[in-house]
Amino acid sequence: MRSRFITLAKNVILAVGWLMMAEPVYGDEGMWLFNQPPREYLQKQYGFAPDDAWLEHVRLASVRFNSGGSGSFVSPYGLVMTNHHVASDDLAKLSTPEKNYLRDGFHAKTLAEELPCKGLELNVLIGIQDVTAEVEKAVPPGTPPAEAFKLRQARIAELEKAAADPDKNIRADVVTLYAGGQYHLYTFKKYTDIRLVFAPEKDAAFFGGDPDNFEYPRYCLDVAFVRVYENGKPINSQHYLKWSAQGSREGELVFVSGHPGRTNRGNTMAELKYLRDTGYPYLLQRLNRLEVLLSAWSARSERNAQRAEDELFSIQNSRKARIGGLAGLLDPKLMARKEAQEKRLRDYLTHLQVRMQPLPPWHAEATKAFEVIAQAEKVRAELIRDVTLLENAAGFYCASFGIARTLVRAAEELPKPGGERLREFADARLPSLKFQLFSDEPIYEDLEIVKLTDALTFLATSLGAEHELVQKVLAGKSPRERAYELISGTRVRDVEFRKKVFAEIEEKAKAGQKVEVSRWNDPMMDLALLVDPAARAVRKRFENEVEEPKRQAYAALAKARFAMDGDRVYPDATFTLRLAFGVVKGYKEDGKDVPPFTTFAGMFQRAEEQKHQPPFVLPKRWLERKKALDLQTPLNFVCTADIIGGNSGSPVINKKGEVVGLIFDGNIQSLVLDFIYDDEQARAISVDSRGILEALRKIYDAQDLADEITGVLKR
Amino acid sequence: MRSRFITLAKNVILAVGWLMMAEPVYGDEGMWLFNQPPREYLQKQYGFAPDDAWLEHVRLASVRFNSGGSGSFVSPYGLVMTNHHVASDDLAKLSTPEKNYLRDGFHAKTLAEELPCKGLELNVLIGIQDVTAEVEKAVPPGTPPAEAFKLRQARIAELEKAAADPDKNIRADVVTLYAGGQYHLYTFKKYTDIRLVFAPEKDAAFFGGDPDNFEYPRYCLDVAFVRVYENGKPINSQHYLKWSAQGSREGELVFVSGHPGRTNRGNTMAELKYLRDTGYPYLLQRLNRLEVLLSAWSARSERNAQRAEDELFSIQNSRKARIGGLAGLLDPKLMARKEAQEKRLRDYLTHLQVRMQPLPPWHAEATKAFEVIAQAEKVRAELIRDVTLLENAAGFYCASFGIARTLVRAAEELPKPGGERLREFADARLPSLKFQLFSDEPIYEDLEIVKLTDALTFLATSLGAEHELVQKVLAGKSPRERAYELISGTRVRDVEFRKKVFAEIEEKAKAGQKVEVSRWNDPMMDLALLVDPAARAVRKRFENEVEEPKRQAYAALAKARFAMDGDRVYPDATFTLRLAFGVVKGYKEDGKDVPPFTTFAGMFQRAEEQKHQPPFVLPKRWLERKKALDLQTPLNFVCTADIIGGNSGSPVINKKGEVVGLIFDGNIQSLVLDFIYDDEQARAISVDSRGILEALRKIYDAQDLADEITGVLKR
Repeated sequence: MRSRFITLAKNVILAVGWLMMAEPVYGDEGMWLFNQPPREYLQKQYGFAPDDAWLEHVRLASVRFNSGGSGSFVSPYGLVMTNHHVASDDLAKLSTPEKNYLRDGFHAKTLAEELPCKGLELNVLIGIQDVTAEVEKAVPPGTPPAEAFKLRQARIAELEKAAADPDKNIRADVVTLYAGGQYHLYTFKKYTDIRLVFAPEKDAAFFGGDPDNFEYPRYCLDVAFVRVYENGKPINSQHYLKWSAQGSREGELVFVSGHPGRTNRGNTMAELKYLRDTGYPYLLQRLNRLEVLLSAWSARSERNAQRAEDELFSIQNSRKARIGGLAGLLDPKLMARKEAQEKRLRDYLTHLQVRMQPLPPWHAEATKAFEVIAQAEKVRAELIRDVTLLENAAGFYCASFGIARTLVRAAEELPKPGGERLREFADARLPSLKFQLFSDEPIYEDLEIVKLTDALTFLATSLGAEHELVQKVLAGKSPRERAYELISGTRVRDVEFRKKVFAEIEEKAKAGQKVEVSRWNDPMMDLALLVDPAARAVRKRFENEVEEPKRQAYAALAKARFAMDGDRVYPDATFTLRLAFGVVKGYKEDGKDVPPFTTFAGMFQRAEEQKHQPPFVLPKRWLERKKALDLQTPLNFVCTADIIGGNSGSPVINKKGEVVGLIFDGNIQSLVLDFIYDDEQARAISVDSRGILEALRKIYDAQDLADEITGVLKR
Repeated sequence: MRSRFITLAKNVILAVGWLMMAEPVYGDEGMWLFNQPPREYLQKQYGFAPDDAWLEHVRLASVRFNSGGSGSFVSPYGLVMTNHHVASDDLAKLSTPEKNYLRDGFHAKTLAEELPCKGLELNVLIGIQDVTAEVEKAVPPGTPPAEAFKLRQARIAELEKAAADPDKNIRADVVTLYAGGQYHLYTFKKYTDIRLVFAPEKDAAFFGGDPDNFEYPRYCLDVAFVRVYENGKPINSQHYLKWSAQGSREGELVFVSGHPGRTNRGNTMAELKYLRDTGYPYLLQRLNRLEVLLSAWSARSERNAQRAEDELFSIQNSRKARIGGLAGLLDPKLMARKEAQEKRLRDYLTHLQVRMQPLPPWHAEATKAFEVIAQAEKVRAELIRDVTLLENAAGFYCASFGIARTLVRAAEELPKPGGERLREFADARLPSLKFQLFSDEPIYEDLEIVKLTDALTFLATSLGAEHELVQKVLAGKSPRERAYELISGTRVRDVEFRKKVFAEIEEKAKAGQKVEVSRWNDPMMDLALLVDPAARAVRKRFENEVEEPKRQAYAALAKARFAMDGDRVYPDATFTLRLAFGVVKGYKEDGKDVPPFTTFAGMFQRAEEQKHQPPFVLPKRWLERKKALDLQTPLNFVCTADIIGGNSGSPVINKKGEVVGLIFDGNIQSLVLDFIYDDEQARAISVDSRGILEALRKIYDAQDLADEITGVLKR
């Protein structure tokens, strides 16, 4: 497909004088493919463009964490640098009642002390091949969409199979780019023997906690090191990034190599306005509500606080992210740029209409796509309340209801043929569904009652207390009484019960029979059963009138956009390797300058001002070693590179390919990058290479590690 | 009017057999007038009814604080007991940079050390006279409403003037009861030389802070003592309450004498449903939003936390109160009782319709009142968003906007004749308006920006970012940029500027001229000017279509209700002296028993569990004296008495008229008492008389004070 569209685009450009159009990207925008870097712009703007060798070296030094983050080789001995918060799951898993590595940190002084991380997989992108033509060849022109989809998937599977080599741990994925404008075959070297080398205390890595999350200035040593082994020995990672002892300076060009997860830069104005006027405000109301609920409950006792801690943090994190995103959507400058982008695409389509015959096959669909999406967003706004309350179960928000619903739906779905089930019950998804369902993560009865009381109140006040469903759900009781009755009466918090029920459902399903779940007489399962018809009805409308029309319309627009710009633009993020770039640069906020660098001195001062109260506690070792530190050493810095979630742990690299920093966050203004790149205030936040080195040497006595990354130590 | 309606009611009852109707009150319900106590019920239920002497004694021992609370004489030497939180304003005012009495407590060991509380006034209700007939005589039958109002007010003013005796500090108020069913002339002895005697540390008085506010079990020594002086000497308070060293026991009948502020027990179902389905949920969303905003900002620094502390606490307090009220409105049992009450009144009206000719003059209006109120509540729901955003200024929420609006509106209103102005600009209200306007309370620029950014975001997402007014308000900027521009650009935070502007407005107004406020070129005043037409328009609709029709409809219903029940029921609370009663009694919550009493032991245990972190910090003196304490001494207890805000500081009295406790709060379930009395879980919370004594003697070495209240010490 690629070549066809590229050719087409060129034809179009030549034919209709489309060369006059505005630049398709803005400043340092872009999460670029390693095989399609914006060399021209870089050369013009910064007098430097990475050559193929530079790109190959950086690509091979970059690492993807299957747990959802990025990293890089920083020594020839398989040493990988990432964030503490990328490694935190592994730190937690490795911890024991005696040793809390997540809280207290870890340091293997010898290779023998390094701890294997179970289940962790790292991938290195060793090859990229454009297979667009091969994929498209599988689909004869005029094939109906459903058939086309099958044929395409089959070809992709063939290509992946041919390129993979399980014996050599070579994995292959065909990556869909530009919503189908291009297909690239990525081959990865897969590593599964990963060992923990070093992590600081959580208090140092996440200094400032939620209050400072997404904020700047910032003071976090959010770093961890792991090592890649093969055959019981550290690998020879010849492509590794050298360490810059000089770090970066203000105004310097830097690159970020990592794995941005997902962006929505193609969103139409109709969707952005839906998010701005309806989606985000509605979600924020709910997040505010839950944050207040859990904060107030947590404040009642230490025990409560521990029980709600993780959930509360994740709510606070989402709340901040949405506030940042909404602020961007309410910024007329950014929206004007989105408007101009959309106009440019519309104009292009009109241009073709007037000047070109025959029109490309996607033209008609792309032209009406704006209206299709606008209509879908209208329906989405109309459904948001019921989808949230019923299908997303905000009106029954507690773990017990989620479990009960899974059991109830399993009884309904499993007897059906795989293709006709709700998607989460497809055969391929069953293992992960069961893994979740049988998890023995603790569920606290008191917290469940508090959450369900609030959820039932939310349901009743949203639909009106006299709504028929509300009356049935509450069964003549107040939300509190009903929540108590449901939570204290259900058995679904018992994992063994869940296993028993599910096993029975599965067994009957194999014989094509359906189990009547009402026979367990479980009040929560009965509630899930009661709610299910309404929940399924709204889900169906949402899928048919919102999701599917939008999917098709956006695909058509992506084709048009690709025809217009080809690879002069980067594709939306896909959790595959991308190259971003920008300059080290502060910004202005409320009329004040926010300088690009912070220092250890700033961190100690912040702890002092906050009276060393959580989350501003400095680890004991930091206080003891304060005198040894050069307090003016830079600790964190910001740059204008275009990043998003998934970039956590990405190295920040200078022109020479040396590590000058380590991405760990974006500021609140960067949260709009989901939709649009900006460089006025949006910034990526990194740990400074100098700060890492200073801490390793002066605080953690990790001389070997510091010597290894600076190339002094040979193993 | 009273006699007429009473007579009428009796006629009606005799005529139509209305004696069969259900009891108008529920169990221990009622905030009774001292001159109309429910003797019959008390006698029947508890075998005890207070006689006139008992009532007179308790009334004369009861004290109203003009700052908004209750108290009682507890020694013959003018000693008054109230809550720490009632006295807290005075504690703050008396504090100096060296001595923080609010935080650290206060204890005058001698009379000479007692500190005068400036501006504090206490009232004792020395006489009650039913003047209904006199008031009504002033209004000839058939007088149009506006004229009737004037004549009535004139007569009331005459009665008050005749009864008052400023030389003897006798003040007189005609109190409107049963929404005009009765008028009582209250005469008060007024005291203005009030001196602080004792207060514990805030940490002891408000142990548990916001997390434990409205909760039970509870552990607060929320007590303070002041003394009433006249002519430089403690008064001879012959009517004082003796102290019960035995306290109360579970199941015992107790009385509460105090000043409940305001109840809405006459609310129709239409209004209750509006509050349940619209009013409370909407307000709670806003409170959640502000709580999250201020909590998140506070968490960023100690300085922020201090700046936002008072506002945040008041938001949390409101949030809890509304959640409690909403829970009651969502309780089908309570709503069924309200429904039955309403049906009883409707049936009564129908009864009259059928059986009585001619109908009483209010009958027609009362009959259609339900529909009038229902219609008004519909409009209220329709207007809630715009009233909140524009007239209540939630869309511009910050102190600077409030000031700017006052200036802008003053310029518009003051040149008008007094009667035509917005009510807050009436001549009688100008002094208090100016007092507020010229207050030098600090306004923090950073907090103002944070609040206004959020408010403008709320405005934009509520009305839609493309709404004409929103566009004008934001002036092409993002909420944050605009908030920064407005807050940093305005001069209204400067008190001198405010005074100058207001003086100019007032001076011109005297000459009947209007000042153009735009000439100050102040961006915040310009914003207030821009918003004013829309704000005034929605206010006018609200007043004309909601407030006024409801006022009239409720007055008609009150007349009907009074005709039906006369003084067999108590009138809604009016911040005048009332007598409530109930029993000391625990309750069941989530299937668990909540016992009625807590002890010092429980308090120490709670502090321990909470690791002595704020707000669970015990004062140093408490920790030092722990060994001396009898830890089993009761500290707080709950009873079923019918109380509401304004009852803070009320004494809890046994049949012998002795103090057994001190009201300081209600539990969360009691927050429905605004609308309906309940005794299943709703409880009044008191400090136990035994706990107060134990603390005075063993913790505070306040032997004199303990001896004075127990009658040992003679002064």
